[in-house]
Amino acid sequence: MDVPLSCYACGTTAALADGARCDCGEPYWVQTDPSTFEWPDTSERSLWRYRALLPDVTPAGLAAGAGGTPLVRAPRLDDDVGATVHVKYEGANPTGTFKDRGSAVGVAAGAAAGDDAVGTVSHGNMARSMAAHAASAGLDCLVLVPADIPVERLALLARYDPTILRVEGDYGRLYRESLRVGSEAGVRFVNSDTPLRVAGQGTTALEIAESFAPDVPDAVVLPVSSGGHASGVWKAFRDLSAADLVDRVPRLYFVQTSACAPIAEAWARRDDVVTPVEAGETVAYSIANADPPSGNRVLAAASETDGGVLAVDDDAILDARRALASSAGLFVESACATVLAGARRLHDRGDLVADDDVVLVATGTGFTERDLDAPGVDAETVPLSALDETVARII
Amino acid sequence: MDVPLSCYACGTTAALADGARCDCGEPYWVQTDPSTFEWPDTSERSLWRYRALLPDVTPAGLAAGAGGTPLVRAPRLDDDVGATVHVKYEGANPTGTFKDRGSAVGVAAGAAAGDDAVGTVSHGNMARSMAAHAASAGLDCLVLVPADIPVERLALLARYDPTILRVEGDYGRLYRESLRVGSEAGVRFVNSDTPLRVAGQGTTALEIAESFAPDVPDAVVLPVSSGGHASGVWKAFRDLSAADLVDRVPRLYFVQTSACAPIAEAWARRDDVVTPVEAGETVAYSIANADPPSGNRVLAAASETDGGVLAVDDDAILDARRALASSAGLFVESACATVLAGARRLHDRGDLVADDDVVLVATGTGFTERDLDAPGVDAETVPLSALDETVARII
Ligand SMILES: [Zn+2]
Ligand SMILES: [Zn+2]
Repeated sequence: MDVPLSCYACGTTAALADGARCDCGEPYWVQTDPSTFEWPDTSERSLWRYRALLPDVTPAGLAAGAGGTPLVRAPRLDDDVGATVHVKYEGANPTGTFKDRGSAVGVAAGAAAGDDAVGTVSHGNMARSMAAHAASAGLDCLVLVPADIPVERLALLARYDPTILRVEGDYGRLYRESLRVGSEAGVRFVNSDTPLRVAGQGTTALEIAESFAPDVPDAVVLPVSSGGHASGVWKAFRDLSAADLVDRVPRLYFVQTSACAPIAEAWARRDDVVTPVEAGETVAYSIANADPPSGNRVLAAASETDGGVLAVDDDAILDARRALASSAGLFVESACATVLAGARRLHDRGDLVADDDVVLVATGTGFTERDLDAPGVDAETVPLSALDETVARII
Repeated sequence: MDVPLSCYACGTTAALADGARCDCGEPYWVQTDPSTFEWPDTSERSLWRYRALLPDVTPAGLAAGAGGTPLVRAPRLDDDVGATVHVKYEGANPTGTFKDRGSAVGVAAGAAAGDDAVGTVSHGNMARSMAAHAASAGLDCLVLVPADIPVERLALLARYDPTILRVEGDYGRLYRESLRVGSEAGVRFVNSDTPLRVAGQGTTALEIAESFAPDVPDAVVLPVSSGGHASGVWKAFRDLSAADLVDRVPRLYFVQTSACAPIAEAWARRDDVVTPVEAGETVAYSIANADPPSGNRVLAAASETDGGVLAVDDDAILDARRALASSAGLFVESACATVLAGARRLHDRGDLVADDDVVLVATGTGFTERDLDAPGVDAETVPLSALDETVARII
């Protein structure tokens, strides 16, 4: 399986076996040929609908179930955001997270290449997603987690029976080292901004764009952590532009948590290079990446699309999470409630306006965090014989 | 909005305003006209793909995101079941449950009719689903729960901000009374076997059938509780048969938990009428319906399709749940792990054979039950400097 790669920053081309990073220091992505791409004429619902823009592998098992998530209107949030709000609900993926798109492509590629094992560096959504896809495909899965994560926090991951290794040391360095170690040991690491994962993650944007075609949404708001999803979305819109299927690229806005916002801070300084930070505590721990490997690529995506990068605090995040459930019917992970908090801020500062169609990408289900910010329950108790009068009174 | 109904048992026809039940005692379902139905030629992914077989209403908000769930192969379960195993993963619905299909149709109908409020009788998946869809559509939602449910168990439901009423008295009677009370108070109750819900639930089968077309799966295995989903699936296959889109109807197998198995017990006795039982404790509490309102209709569905109804115990259910996660990558609710436990039993007794394509309908995500049967975590801790040697050793 030969997968061509290229560097967004300097244009260098490479192959998958050459590794995930260009000599210029920036990450590669999968080089596609969008010149003849058309919207597919097929009843295929999953992300494999877009196989013409994906590495040439055949999905098996769970990989065939990734993507194809709903895009729904959320009219009761329009006033909050001062625009027409659509939510792309990634919690509908097989493990409840957008990560399944990248895992599907990565694990399918591993299976196609005859790999025995895949791996990742994560203790959250990506780890769970990789373990699930590997389990379905019959591959071993090696998950490297920081040693300071309490083992109880890994119980959900352990359901899928991966090999978990707790590693002491710097997390950013572990991310980079894992790719080398995996390559030498025959374990395909599908980390958060590696080319196969980014190729899969880009299908979020392909689905959004096809839903709007021949129109194009004005803005897309995405949580950002490592920058892998952001990179895939940007790449997909570039491909669609090259294929003449969109006449413009939406403004891409990326939202971080204030407690750990290296990309937003670089953006505010008008830097084009991200500097690592010390992460603070935050409810949006899933996106608290202090040293984002594709941070510079995110700055480029925001800049080239006339979008931006911003940060929101925990109060704003939790308030947005409550509103998504009570006004849009979508109970989401706190990390992805950042998109509504961010959109409210964009509206306040005039970056979203009344004519805009804005897509909030809700990256994961809240059911994995059901105890966080749990509400009190207010419920009257009545005998069945009083049902008539009670219902008449309260409705 | 005029929705024609008919009784599966005696053929009586009615209209939606006439109520949910025929004078013969059996439930109505929505009368469809499948004579000219064809597989749709559209890129629509949700259940509204099949609007020709649904009540003529327009979905808004979350309703547009229901259905369109993945059907995936689970090759590592083939040996368990002695057949080719496919899993229809209903956890991919917006609230993580198949109930969203029925809620989508019911709430969309309510919105189309200008209702201010909808309601349901449930303290689990259906309540959460109704509350979410109502929240999205801007309708009030009244949820009637048994008074003996501790309020802490309602915290997830409360996220969606419904009006919760705890009612003391017989649950089966509450189910029936709610329809009358709702009708008088202007609250549209979309209970588990009401016609609009059953119409929506049938789209599970339409999606399965279209995925296999022009072939047909040999068997479909479904958990059964009230019998609403089972009824919808049976009706959908009857419609497809009438439309000549399938040349036969799959054998439909319905699985209960041994602790509460009134339909399986009636089936074993070769009765065509279900007698209420006393429910025992079970991990599959979501399907522990002691007095299933569509129980007789389930017996008819099993009988007419050469299928059956069976029960499995908690040990078999939990073992199946573990296998679905570790061998198919799908972490499901215990109530729906019954389908794998049931399929294993069907294989043991010769009802599933090597040539069969069997579809297990996994009705909901396990993330809402993440503490149930939580595994221990076995993980070695190593320094980053020992990563190379450790990975080489363990892989
Ligand atoms: Zn470069
Ligand atoms: Zn009748």
